[in-house]
Amino acid sequence: MISSPSIILVKPQLAENIGMVGRAMLNCGLTDLRLVKPREDHLGKKGIRACAGADDVMRSAQIFPTVAKAVADFNTVYAATARSRDIVKPVLGPKDCMAATIKAHARQEKVAFMFGREKSGLTNVDLSYADAIVTIPVNPAFSSLNLAQSVMVLAYEWFQHTPQADSFEIPDGTNAPKARKKDLLAFLGLLEKNLAERGFFDSVPDKRPKMVQNIRHLFQRLSLSHAEILTLHGIIKTLQKRKKNDKSV
Amino acid sequence: MISSPSIILVKPQLAENIGMVGRAMLNCGLTDLRLVKPREDHLGKKGIRACAGADDVMRSAQIFPTVAKAVADFNTVYAATARSRDIVKPVLGPKDCMAATIKAHARQEKVAFMFGREKSGLTNVDLSYADAIVTIPVNPAFSSLNLAQSVMVLAYEWFQHTPQADSFEIPDGTNAPKARKKDLLAFLGLLEKNLAERGFFDSVPDKRPKMVQNIRHLFQRLSLSHAEILTLHGIIKTLQKRKKNDKSV
Repeated sequence: MISSPSIILVKPQLAENIGMVGRAMLNCGLTDLRLVKPREDHLGKKGIRACAGADDVMRSAQIFPTVAKAVADFNTVYAATARSRDIVKPVLGPKDCMAATIKAHARQEKVAFMFGREKSGLTNVDLSYADAIVTIPVNPAFSSLNLAQSVMVLAYEWFQHTPQADSFEIPDGTNAPKARKKDLLAFLGLLEKNLAERGFFDSVPDKRPKMVQNIRHLFQRLSLSHAEILTLHGIIKTLQKRKKNDKSV
Repeated sequence: MISSPSIILVKPQLAENIGMVGRAMLNCGLTDLRLVKPREDHLGKKGIRACAGADDVMRSAQIFPTVAKAVADFNTVYAATARSRDIVKPVLGPKDCMAATIKAHARQEKVAFMFGREKSGLTNVDLSYADAIVTIPVNPAFSSLNLAQSVMVLAYEWFQHTPQADSFEIPDGTNAPKARKKDLLAFLGLLEKNLAERGFFDSVPDKRPKMVQNIRHLFQRLSLSHAEILTLHGIIKTLQKRKKNDKSV
């Protein structure tokens, strides 16, 4: 089993935010949530609705009376805060923090990320329990992040540093199998023939090879599926028909 | 002025979510929000409260009747979705998507990220307006992200790819100036003298140099500030005093 960091919320005010934190955590594979003196019952309607199915994270969340008790069994605690204070503590960005977390896990150490209450964040007293500060680089003119958003960004960055993310399969978008070259070439040949028969190249006969080449490049670039080639055949065929009410010619 | 991508929300259901999206956008320096057929008034109480001060983003948001109209002036539209569908479209992770966005901006092109409604995401019809899909790698067992969380992750990744993030100053934590070596050494000398006078090294006199070295390493590692050295002087002095009610000795 892969170790994952814990999330500690110090005196969160709204159950809804706790729920959104739970959801964000599970989105990124985190499951250990700790609450220091939450103001509202996180297992009430608002919290459970906001967690959107991450009920297990919510129900297994532990409640602590003090920060000291909540951090007791961790080797490293990172305090998430944007504020610079007159304290001597290392400050890391999310990526460096996660790289350090992965290394700590490899040493069998336990790591937690600690977040303050919605309105005012972590106090200097809370910060005295942390080894380092982790700061999310954001717009300096509007830097106050929603609690669950802060958790999301750190949890997301953590997930990107895990083997899980490496093995995360980004589908290549070619669910429909790409057409074989011979089908593509047959279509292109038919298109060229039809165009030639209708005088497409007549005004500039010497430019025909270059024009054909450009058309081939264009359709090649589309990485067409077999089904799409059939569609294009149908389009060409249809365009050659007369309009339904067209009495001309 | 640095170009930044736009955010298009297709048929968002809750004004509160639009507000949270606005907040997340401004947190990461994004300001152009477009809404396709929002169900609720995003400028109502819930939306404005949720945007937490990003009122300008909310008030300048444009409303469109169709996706086609909302995307009309963009060169590239990325659809944010986790679903794999039977469509032939490139799929990018957030980092690759942002790298491509930065390049597109350098070519003076306009880029948008499009998000679907909370419950059901983007439809296949919506997706037909997109150039590519951007997928956020998350826990495959619980991959449904809150709308504003999805926006936050992409906006955050975008911000990390901008020069703004490079110039974002992560404070080095040494707000209080680090002590000069002579003050540290004076303190270490005093500590050693006081320990020696009280018999700290008596039982193992030949190990004294090694013990002193270890103590020096320990305090060196702390990167003490001048104020902290004064505090340590105070601690040593105080520890040598008798307890207030101690009648012994």
